[in-house]
Amino acid sequence: MTQQKPFSTGSHLEREIFEQPQVIKRLVTERRDGVAAIAADIRAANPCYVAIAARGTSDHAALYGKYLFGVWANLPVALATPSVFTLYDSPPLLKDALVIGISQSGRSTDVGQVLTAAAGQGALTLAITNDETSPMAQTAKYHIPLSAGQELSLAATKTYTAQLTTLAMLVAALVDHQEMADGLEKLPGWVDETLQMSEGVVARAERYAFMEHCVTLGRGYNYATCFEIALKIKELTYVVAQPYSSADFRHGPIAVVGAGFPALVVATRGKVYDDMIDLLKALKERSAELIVISDSAEALNFARSPFCLPSDVPEWISPVVSVLPGQLFAMGLALAKGHNIDNPRGLHKITITY
Amino acid sequence: MTQQKPFSTGSHLEREIFEQPQVIKRLVTERRDGVAAIAADIRAANPCYVAIAARGTSDHAALYGKYLFGVWANLPVALATPSVFTLYDSPPLLKDALVIGISQSGRSTDVGQVLTAAAGQGALTLAITNDETSPMAQTAKYHIPLSAGQELSLAATKTYTAQLTTLAMLVAALVDHQEMADGLEKLPGWVDETLQMSEGVVARAERYAFMEHCVTLGRGYNYATCFEIALKIKELTYVVAQPYSSADFRHGPIAVVGAGFPALVVATRGKVYDDMIDLLKALKERSAELIVISDSAEALNFARSPFCLPSDVPEWISPVVSVLPGQLFAMGLALAKGHNIDNPRGLHKITITY
Repeated sequence: MTQQKPFSTGSHLEREIFEQPQVIKRLVTERRDGVAAIAADIRAANPCYVAIAARGTSDHAALYGKYLFGVWANLPVALATPSVFTLYDSPPLLKDALVIGISQSGRSTDVGQVLTAAAGQGALTLAITNDETSPMAQTAKYHIPLSAGQELSLAATKTYTAQLTTLAMLVAALVDHQEMADGLEKLPGWVDETLQMSEGVVARAERYAFMEHCVTLGRGYNYATCFEIALKIKELTYVVAQPYSSADFRHGPIAVVGAGFPALVVATRGKVYDDMIDLLKALKERSAELIVISDSAEALNFARSPFCLPSDVPEWISPVVSVLPGQLFAMGLALAKGHNIDNPRGLHKITITY
Repeated sequence: MTQQKPFSTGSHLEREIFEQPQVIKRLVTERRDGVAAIAADIRAANPCYVAIAARGTSDHAALYGKYLFGVWANLPVALATPSVFTLYDSPPLLKDALVIGISQSGRSTDVGQVLTAAAGQGALTLAITNDETSPMAQTAKYHIPLSAGQELSLAATKTYTAQLTTLAMLVAALVDHQEMADGLEKLPGWVDETLQMSEGVVARAERYAFMEHCVTLGRGYNYATCFEIALKIKELTYVVAQPYSSADFRHGPIAVVGAGFPALVVATRGKVYDDMIDLLKALKERSAELIVISDSAEALNFARSPFCLPSDVPEWISPVVSVLPGQLFAMGLALAKGHNIDNPRGLHKITITY
């Protein structure tokens, strides 16, 4: 496991990024049995769909969950809109759903209210948080702790990959599929390998010191990744970074791309790969500036800044590794721009929304 | 009804924007009985949730639908992820859902595939399109035609407000609530009044001729509106416009806002109004440049560019009017920047995605 801190910023952010191999290893080993027991109860309850409530980074974990539950467990996922529960009078009826609330702190007020309403309606409820004593952990029937240790940087990193891993463990336990079990066992090693391969990312970010806006693109499982990387860039560098699925991007927004327009593209091998290559070609034709995160030399060849991933990570679990160069890029860009990376302006660790 | 074309660009876009009062009037009068019959069948089938598949502008109508179904009919809404159906092997099971596909052309390949999969599973399916002969209209058990007339501008305007209105008509028929019926009856007049009030918007856009990026903010029912306005701005002006709910915006992205940063805020009176006022105060403290669309003088007073709405439109139907100044602003900005407003670079009316 990586122990050195190659950039030595002395920041919480850097330390927490490099803690990820240990956090993931702890989750997949120590929490496996607890997750399996919850999965058995869920299977018995046989919900007809899943509703997930979350905000910010946790909502990106929910986007990943949409693909995991949909593809592996054939369960449709509704991303609950907390304000329907908190601001309007009559909440939707969730009794046939498995209702999951995801929050690093477990103190996100509106996400907690969705769990409270769902529990009151008799729905099966599950909280995924980093604090066993939090209100959300108390409200839900089931709780899976992220066990990530305290997160001190305002920009969430290790709790995000821990949330992704927890959702993957839950679905793996639900469907009891050997491929998923094998992938989870190898995951801590892949996370470690990716961080080691990404040593040059922070320095490479200097090229973008004067970048003011960009788009981030991904699809399928890595739709979540491009959202999360865009959020890290915004939080840490104040650059307007806008995430899109490649499909939505073609429905209009691609119009903003002219020569030199920076686009960060997550193009891992798998079912969406051909579509991402087509998009890379279209962006190249417009002379966009391409930053590519990929496990494929073909995709990386399109890039002015190629960020390489290990070659043997299956698509379904790749979001846990593909976000890592993005975290390092956002940190490097913040350093290049001279920002305080542990305390971005105007942010608080727990955001209260009603 | 407004007939004059006050800016006389001679464009399809301008003509179609000003056709909206007639389109909405035609919908609410001529389609009411057909929608009521479909609603009766849906009530009888008693689905446990709604799944909506859509892309681009139509997906913003789906966001509005999420609040309508949730608040008025207590039905949770899952926004179906078309790629789970088109790219991965085993689609989610939708048999307990009402599955709605929304597409202007009715030819959106992946949205059509969701309807096909849902129909094959025995789910209740409904297509909302502007073409009765389209594949989606044929696939779904039920079809509601938008009756908007052909849309020739690449940027969708009249079909968007027609989609919103259709969803409102469907939910009104489902819950049979007098307030909704009254609101729909008055809607064509409000749309007309808003366009007349918005005469200055196009000229006002000139101030922003050199704007390169902005954010658009809304919440609740008007979450959809800020997404749709951002898309019009991107499609027509190539400005990087990023939409957020006020809640998500505070979870990180607000960090990008410094002095002079342009933010377009939709702040109509209703349940989310206090929250939007709090956000306007926070943005004002950061010396943001505020463009405000509102029916409240208090909210408009925060703005460098205030765009006024009629004062008697209830929150639940306000998205049909609050988007109109946004459409005109995007058109005005395209004119100010000297772009071809009917044929933005690199866009096609029907986008094929798999």
